Amino acid sequence: MGQNVGDLGEFGLLARIAARLNETDQPDDGRVVVGPGDDAAVVTVPDGRVVVTTDMLVDGRHFRRDWSSAYDIGRRAAAANLADVVAMGADPVALVVGLALPSDTEVAWVTGLTDGLRDECAELGATVVGGDIVRGDLIVISGTALGDLGGRKPILRSGAHPGDTVAVAGRLGWAAAGLTVLRRGFRSPRVLADAHRRPDPPYAAALAAARGPVTAMADISDGLVADAGHLAAASGVSIELVKSQLPVAKELLEAAAAFNVDPLNWVLTGGDDHGFVATFTKRRKLPAGFIAIGVVVEGAGQVLVDGEPYANQGGHDHFRD
Amino acid sequence: MGQNVGDLGEFGLLARIAARLNETDQPDDGRVVVGPGDDAAVVTVPDGRVVVTTDMLVDGRHFRRDWSSAYDIGRRAAAANLADVVAMGADPVALVVGLALPSDTEVAWVTGLTDGLRDECAELGATVVGGDIVRGDLIVISGTALGDLGGRKPILRSGAHPGDTVAVAGRLGWAAAGLTVLRRGFRSPRVLADAHRRPDPPYAAALAAARGPVTAMADISDGLVADAGHLAAASGVSIELVKSQLPVAKELLEAAAAFNVDPLNWVLTGGDDHGFVATFTKRRKLPAGFIAIGVVVEGAGQVLVDGEPYANQGGHDHFRD
Repeated sequence: MGQNVGDLGEFGLLARIAARLNETDQPDDGRVVVGPGDDAAVVTVPDGRVVVTTDMLVDGRHFRRDWSSAYDIGRRAAAANLADVVAMGADPVALVVGLALPSDTEVAWVTGLTDGLRDECAELGATVVGGDIVRGDLIVISGTALGDLGGRKPILRSGAHPGDTVAVAGRLGWAAAGLTVLRRGFRSPRVLADAHRRPDPPYAAALAAARGPVTAMADISDGLVADAGHLAAASGVSIELVKSQLPVAKELLEAAAAFNVDPLNWVLTGGDDHGFVATFTKRRKLPAGFIAIGVVVEGAGQVLVDGEPYANQGGHDHFRD
Repeated sequence: MGQNVGDLGEFGLLARIAARLNETDQPDDGRVVVGPGDDAAVVTVPDGRVVVTTDMLVDGRHFRRDWSSAYDIGRRAAAANLADVVAMGADPVALVVGLALPSDTEVAWVTGLTDGLRDECAELGATVVGGDIVRGDLIVISGTALGDLGGRKPILRSGAHPGDTVAVAGRLGWAAAGLTVLRRGFRSPRVLADAHRRPDPPYAAALAAARGPVTAMADISDGLVADAGHLAAASGVSIELVKSQLPVAKELLEAAAAFNVDPLNWVLTGGDDHGFVATFTKRRKLPAGFIAIGVVVEGAGQVLVDGEPYANQGGHDHFRD
């Protein structure tokens, strides 16, 4: 066993974290006016409007330390927040992180987490600018990301119109398939287990969409049907998905055959890949990375798959799983 | 027992919370561009720089539900964040809140917490604009507050110069005295127990200071000696406090006599009142609400009380209490 946070103490731990954040990967482009160490951080948002979102991960529910490395958990915690900022059409600027830790947490776990948070942010030119560390009986990671709209209008869930094309970017169902793999005690297919451990949100595709003919967009965190449903409800429309157009990766087909399950269930209900579902003005070229999967129709917030409601439409309920 | 969050489900709970937030007290001055319900919120920060801070509270460590109402815990969770924004000299604009809840948490507890968060924000014209709710085996409240600098420079901890006057605003040691009262099984003096339950940060004094001859400022959350020490260390100076100038309230003197403890220990080491310690250019009039308690001298981050280091100088360490 390595040194734990109880041995090191709060101020020693903060110094270790600061050292990781100051490694080469943190962007230094003048956007961070005041970094960690004061009462608060200060970052520039030239737009004059700031996009803000928060996401909490609890040990044993949202991640398992025997399944995922601290580094991957950090990447995932950051990605969950950054994807929400990007889903608004904004460029992520900064992340702050609240962390509850038991005293026996290894220091190496915390520094690994920090590296993951930092590196996921760096992919988008964003910076970890502060946080809070407290003792708790279980590990809780609470991230809050800020973004800048760059003069553009925010892309809301409420902008879809009948006739719009529905499209998705990113993996669908991979993280859910990976969770099935891990829950059944397997470590492979590795590519699926890894998809659960660390999402790979198609940030660039969503940010390109925000500059184009997009009418509405949402991060897929509760599953395609559930999140398309949120978008449909907010827009006062319904959405018709075409089963044959849904991307079902060969990796999912193979795993589904091995586990004797329907791969479409992963694709339609799996969260945690942090892909994006968006609607686009009809007959306009979709941005790179998006594929059409259906159309927006008149309606009252329903999502239909080949004309039928999908059984599991309610999506994930944190208090009823 | 009333209805609990497991009965109501995540989406029902979110609807209840939204209803509380939409009650009369949420300011509507055009600063909230996008409120709760989308992937992220959007708020205006006309300055183009946003101040951001995060603070996490864990049930049983930072609050006890048998000592404090949900409403008071909400006020306190918001105050802990808002005081940090104000300590930077910024006007709080918005708060987002991550919340881990066991399924058996009563819905009334969550709505009470929400009311407290909302009302503390409203005192400063700020708004609760979003959050995340997840299931967890214990209650964790993670707030993140945003502020706008209004064209002013941020007030850092690092700006103190030898010769500056050291001053404080707000209660010192009241919350710590209240904690002693509650820990020993008493409910009175009520005014002290209440000071633990709900801080009353002197926001207006600190915001006035930010517009005056202040050189450095910090929120007092770890205790006066510890936070003055952070300020001294960041500024590369030392601080000499004068014991006879420290405000020791009559309520503290009486309680200290009853408990046979030294009231100065509460004043010098008690956190959680969220007062402010600041330094001001010599011979300039202090802003209303601040009282002089010492001077800044050449040095290496020490805090001396009547020329001596104070025994408990290290302050509170979350992992070693």
